[in-house]
Amino acid sequence: MTNTQASQTSHGNLRYERGLAKLQEIDGEGGVKVVESLADIAPDFARLLIEFPFGDVYSRPGLDLRSREIAVVAALTAMGNAAPQLKVHIQGALNVGVTRTEVIEIIMQMAVYAGFPAALNGISAAREVFAADDKKSAQSLAEPRALAEEAI
Amino acid sequence: MTNTQASQTSHGNLRYERGLAKLQEIDGEGGVKVVESLADIAPDFARLLIEFPFGDVYSRPGLDLRSREIAVVAALTAMGNAAPQLKVHIQGALNVGVTRTEVIEIIMQMAVYAGFPAALNGISAAREVFAADDKKSAQSLAEPRALAEEAI
Amino acid sequence: MTNTQASQTSHGNLRYERGLAKLQEIDGEGGVKVVESLADIAPDFARLLIEFPFGDVYSRPGLDLRSREIAVVAALTAMGNAAPQLKVHIQGALNVGVTRTEVIEIIMQMAVYAGFPAALNGISAAREVFAADDKKSAQSLAEPRALAEEAI
Amino acid sequence: MTNTQASQTSHGNLRYERGLAKLQEIDGEGGVKVVESLADIAPDFARLLIEFPFGDVYSRPGLDLRSREIAVVAALTAMGNAAPQLKVHIQGALNVGVTRTEVIEIIMQMAVYAGFPAALNGISAAREVFAADDKKSAQSLAEPRALAEEAI
Amino acid sequence: MTNTQASQTSHGNLRYERGLAKLQEIDGEGGVKVVESLADIAPDFARLLIEFPFGDVYSRPGLDLRSREIAVVAALTAMGNAAPQLKVHIQGALNVGVTRTEVIEIIMQMAVYAGFPAALNGISAAREVFAADDKKSAQSLAEPRALAEEAI
Amino acid sequence: MTNTQASQTSHGNLRYERGLAKLQEIDGEGGVKVVESLADIAPDFARLLIEFPFGDVYSRPGLDLRSREIAVVAALTAMGNAAPQLKVHIQGALNVGVTRTEVIEIIMQMAVYAGFPAALNGISAAREVFAADDKKSAQSLAEPRALAEEAI
Repeated sequence: MTNTQASQTSHGNLRYERGLAKLQEIDGEGGVKVVESLADIAPDFARLLIEFPFGDVYSRPGLDLRSREIAVVAALTAMGNAAPQLKVHIQGALNVGVTRTEVIEIIMQMAVYAGFPAALNGISAAREVFAADDKKSAQSLAEPRALAEEAI
Repeated sequence: MTNTQASQTSHGNLRYERGLAKLQEIDGEGGVKVVESLADIAPDFARLLIEFPFGDVYSRPGLDLRSREIAVVAALTAMGNAAPQLKVHIQGALNVGVTRTEVIEIIMQMAVYAGFPAALNGISAAREVFAADDKKSAQSLAEPRALAEEAI
Repeated sequence: MTNTQASQTSHGNLRYERGLAKLQEIDGEGGVKVVESLADIAPDFARLLIEFPFGDVYSRPGLDLRSREIAVVAALTAMGNAAPQLKVHIQGALNVGVTRTEVIEIIMQMAVYAGFPAALNGISAAREVFAADDKKSAQSLAEPRALAEEAI
Repeated sequence: MTNTQASQTSHGNLRYERGLAKLQEIDGEGGVKVVESLADIAPDFARLLIEFPFGDVYSRPGLDLRSREIAVVAALTAMGNAAPQLKVHIQGALNVGVTRTEVIEIIMQMAVYAGFPAALNGISAAREVFAADDKKSAQSLAEPRALAEEAI
Repeated sequence: MTNTQASQTSHGNLRYERGLAKLQEIDGEGGVKVVESLADIAPDFARLLIEFPFGDVYSRPGLDLRSREIAVVAALTAMGNAAPQLKVHIQGALNVGVTRTEVIEIIMQMAVYAGFPAALNGISAAREVFAADDKKSAQSLAEPRALAEEAI
Repeated sequence: MTNTQASQTSHGNLRYERGLAKLQEIDGEGGVKVVESLADIAPDFARLLIEFPFGDVYSRPGLDLRSREIAVVAALTAMGNAAPQLKVHIQGALNVGVTRTEVIEIIMQMAVYAGFPAALNGISAAREVFAADDKKSAQSLAEPRALAEEAI
């Protein structure tokens, strides 16, 4: 470990801890999986992923988590090129209090702004997430639900 | 007017009226401007614009207007290729109860999902809208604020 | 059903019927599949999908179906983030009289405007559609060919 | 001039001449302007622009020019990030026989596939092109109409 | 200032200082302008902009600055929706040792991957930056060259 | 073969040969596979793919291959809609001297400019390429590694 990295880590501890807590609040055990799965190839990216999006941004006051997840589900549906992350955030939205009906309405709203194909692919993502969520509820298992790289 | 268009209009009346009312609720006098400005070149598109996005989608139950505008501001910031419409919807978000602080937070959140340039351009759009809004408040004028084709 | 939805439906009948007919003209039995497949999770979106794109837009005079499909194949190839819908519209283009050679030329033209990767992925989509079309012809089957959410 | 460039030029003559003729057929005097305007900073790119898009692709048999321009107007409207080129190709479409009504229909069709903001910005581009075209007709001038770097 | 923000600041100091130095190395006096210009509307975003992109990412070992700027000029040219930031990074690339010829080659390379319109718009951006750079050299002035929100 | 095509071929020979050599330098045996795989459906596109990107652009002086591949990996990661081509170019980057560490840094840099989802999907692509590369090294096999349409 270089000096640069050492100082990054020592000064970043609070952000990292805050970010990890926030990631777990939104994505549950998936947060731990994220760090572990990137460890083989991009361990520093795992740390930055915890620190900046979750430690710096999601942790900010000024906008509630529910609204943040509405924003993210909308943006990822509209962009249409990040299906794994869209699925994780549909689940994240459910986790912080957005209802399934609301998720579908957010995606339908995107038909107006990004076109019907984007919305239809968003509906497909939602169907997969809802089905996995039903299955998990039936099993009463709290197993990690997110593939590691999908957890942003 | 062809027969086809006549039947579209007669069956579309309720959607049109509902859409126009919803557009005015979100964008104020800008709604009237929209119809007028497209009249020269694409009058049918003006009608479709009222009927589908506003009459069919925004009017739906299942998601409050505030959440719909959060979704739209997020998506247009992330897509980064629709600055005129982003400005209209930042104002629309303010109109339906999103605060300026929340608008800025939504845009900052997009730095994570669509990159810093998208967020910086969103901040520029917000600055313009906030300044225009301040000026309008100072004048106590209720003048139409949106350029016609920006009102979607 | 709420009053709002009831009035939407009664006033939307003509658009729905016209849209369903147009969808079948372009996509054959896939039209029925669309409505059925969205029924579990987003039934209203199935209706809007029939009514707006097919009932309102594709049904318009002013541009022939062949030209509309050329436009859609080009756009979806260039956007590069809607592979399922691109495949459906390559088949739709064939259905309304665009030749295979012309489909390939449209996609190659996109190399100039959206880059070679977009065109190469478009070629892959065309290969799949042509192969499925050959197989279907060999079987003389008129089975529904489109997955539900792909039919826009 | 290096040997490499010399051989490129001698072998590329036919493509260059064919491309220049095709560019002029679509964009009129704008073709000459293109070559001239890129001369200061990227002269080789001017040559490649003539040779590949116009000499290699537009010149191909298998798809008529009208269909090629429909495809390009659709794609550039949908992509939403190339307004200068969209304007040139709206004029190009008119030059090869697409009517104004058809241009508007192509753009409206994109509302379905790329969202209303993309279509509204396309309508704005069309309004500018139609107005410039009217002005030019009134003047009976055959002046070059395209800014140089917009001519692709 | 809330407690949360206070702790962010105290723990972020090193990242902020390192980021500001790196921003100045790439963009010169523009770095200071960035912080100042965002102060009115999004002061925390100014801080995050210094800390994460410049303090966390650009400061990393493992890839030289020249290569990082090549990557950024390529990406912003290809994305095509962030012209202000592209201009800043074309200048940034020149600042860290990329030649004008190389900038043009990077942009021409993007014609292959993102299409000719993206490359042509990139050439226009480069022309503006080179002209501003020539003017500045002629004046022997070291004035801040970047508009604040363009400096990412 | 038409006269037009014949003249294209005879005048394009040098570009084709130069392009094929350049493609092999970057992608190894994959180059041959490209031509073969497009033969069924778009043989002319195979030729254009060799001639323009590789014969015209990659072969240019003014920017070294390493820098070209850095630019392409960055752009394809940022665009996020061309995963097959991104994988081929991550391998191509390794082939022309970019290290694995540098590939990861380029992709991490894109988190700043195109968002974390784009970077995470880029990391996934890199993981696949590195694993395939390890396997190949272990086997000491020089087998063609690229699927045909991915080789641009």
